[in-house]
Amino acid sequence: MENTSLRSCRKDGVVYARGATDDKGQLLTHLLAAEAWMKTIGDIPLNLIYLIEGEEEIGSPHLEEFILEHREKLQADVVVISDTSQFGPEMPALCYALRGLTYMEFIVTGANQDLHSGMFGGIVPNPNQVVAAIVAEMKGLDGRIRIPGFYDGVKPPEGWEVAEYEKLPWNDSDLAAQLGLPGLSGEKEYPAPVRRWYRPTLDVNGMYGGYAGKGAKTVIPSIAGAKVSMRLVSGQNPERVAELFEAFVRERVPDDCKVEVIRYQNSPAIIIPVDHPAMQAAKVAFRNGFGKEPLLIREGASIPIVAFFVDTMKMPSILFGFGLPDDNPHAPNEKFTLADFHRGIATSAHFMDVYSEAAG
Amino acid sequence: MENTSLRSCRKDGVVYARGATDDKGQLLTHLLAAEAWMKTIGDIPLNLIYLIEGEEEIGSPHLEEFILEHREKLQADVVVISDTSQFGPEMPALCYALRGLTYMEFIVTGANQDLHSGMFGGIVPNPNQVVAAIVAEMKGLDGRIRIPGFYDGVKPPEGWEVAEYEKLPWNDSDLAAQLGLPGLSGEKEYPAPVRRWYRPTLDVNGMYGGYAGKGAKTVIPSIAGAKVSMRLVSGQNPERVAELFEAFVRERVPDDCKVEVIRYQNSPAIIIPVDHPAMQAAKVAFRNGFGKEPLLIREGASIPIVAFFVDTMKMPSILFGFGLPDDNPHAPNEKFTLADFHRGIATSAHFMDVYSEAAG
Repeated sequence: MENTSLRSCRKDGVVYARGATDDKGQLLTHLLAAEAWMKTIGDIPLNLIYLIEGEEEIGSPHLEEFILEHREKLQADVVVISDTSQFGPEMPALCYALRGLTYMEFIVTGANQDLHSGMFGGIVPNPNQVVAAIVAEMKGLDGRIRIPGFYDGVKPPEGWEVAEYEKLPWNDSDLAAQLGLPGLSGEKEYPAPVRRWYRPTLDVNGMYGGYAGKGAKTVIPSIAGAKVSMRLVSGQNPERVAELFEAFVRERVPDDCKVEVIRYQNSPAIIIPVDHPAMQAAKVAFRNGFGKEPLLIREGASIPIVAFFVDTMKMPSILFGFGLPDDNPHAPNEKFTLADFHRGIATSAHFMDVYSEAAG
Repeated sequence: MENTSLRSCRKDGVVYARGATDDKGQLLTHLLAAEAWMKTIGDIPLNLIYLIEGEEEIGSPHLEEFILEHREKLQADVVVISDTSQFGPEMPALCYALRGLTYMEFIVTGANQDLHSGMFGGIVPNPNQVVAAIVAEMKGLDGRIRIPGFYDGVKPPEGWEVAEYEKLPWNDSDLAAQLGLPGLSGEKEYPAPVRRWYRPTLDVNGMYGGYAGKGAKTVIPSIAGAKVSMRLVSGQNPERVAELFEAFVRERVPDDCKVEVIRYQNSPAIIIPVDHPAMQAAKVAFRNGFGKEPLLIREGASIPIVAFFVDTMKMPSILFGFGLPDDNPHAPNEKFTLADFHRGIATSAHFMDVYSEAAG
């Protein structure tokens, strides 16, 4: 069908548009829930504060400062964020945990300029080689991260968590086929949901050095580097992980090269206690809004502002999302099913009802 | 001084211009030598054939075909090429050997699209990781290449060659300082001239995968790759080296990734026998043109057309160049010292004289 990057449309009960699900559509559910409430019942039994920002996709560079500046106006008993999704069609879910993120880059410099590999090959260091050696040593192809101390504090899922993810219709081979892979990869001793949600990871998101255009060029680059993200789980300290990473890299750069290490982002993993009154209210709201018990799931990704709400602002945060995992956020034909949109509005309205009663 | 990328000028006995030394200026020496000969003595005692092409810097894609097409017209007893340089100021040199070149690229593909490292980290292969592992295994930071069979056929320099390079004013620390390095690198058990001229090398000229722009992006790339050049010495078969390289890479790509291996260039190392009559004539010509015995040197770089002349056309090739190593070819302020230009013209004229007598 037509790519809706620039035009929106509605077809067969689905809205296609930029931001349909991530995140204008999901945001709208909460506004429409409040409107519906006021039109039908009257006063909302809660003091609602809406915090709407449009910079999330570039890392929300001003949000924390804004919140701190308006700290008193924004202080709340609970924060509701709809930036996650259902587990699948007709499988509403409450997300109670996110992985954290430590994002680093290291840049290795050899000679003070690019050199000709014929004239200088054999007598100067090649930063590509140094970067590759460090990257290769950092993590095995078995998925095991070899930075000493990296796994300190990592715990296995609790019994009830195993029971929760075993309820889910995970299908490794379907997912692998969809990604064009012969199977899923990583630490084979853990099932896929554990690898995706309960295990920390390390990925080289970018690796660069020398000539990357078409054809051949015989250059020995002056610099090469790697961008590395580590997804962290609760129990890991992002600041300490950044230090372990930096030490690991610095120890391995040979004397004939220099290295610069950059820290981009450092946010801890988040766990929302499932017995929190707001979580319990959210469960009931889903039951009423979707006609189904929500699944309790984790997410492998990170929403750094949630860590800020929880750790700095001491505000418990509830993540409930109404879209589907294949809604194509950030991609052509981003979509939001109207049935989910309407159930989302109902869920939001029910949450106000249940939580206001629970909170007295 | 002013950058002469677009304008040429003459200053203090030096011509600054694009191609001043590489290679319009050096080409001109041979034309002016012939002109001087005809204006002063008369008929040149040799049958001169000039082959002038302007595509060398893009790999001479049409030259071999052109030569084969005009094979009979171009057949010669000896080929003279001025594309090398003196060893240093007042150090004229005859280059009798060039390294060969095998240039390869390998491209590793994981999933069928780039993926989010939060959502997929831990369950999909990361091609950056695979490329780094292979590159790291291919060559140690000690400069030793670990592709089995790579060094087969490599011989140490002969006694007279050691005597020749020991005559040269090599200075490792000066060169290192000029390149901003604490010292020269590579196989420490060999002196720098051997590493540069007599040892084969492997350099990763380009390494790429994922996000290489500013800041952070949490992508697991679908593809990553490396461009690798190997400088070969006589005794190594470029075709066999390409096969060893390809096998080495293929054996190390894990089952969850695919690999494509591309061969760009394959040219053997060249050695011109120093006792060839043309080499002997060139020695005398230098002695007369520069007033000095030429040094016998090798070059670490490759001039593939020389291999074609020698191997396919069976025409011995003499490499004499008149510029200096710091003439900045391909760079701003490329230059050619007029004194060297004039000595080059004289050397070329003397070569015609001496070689025509030697060849009878």
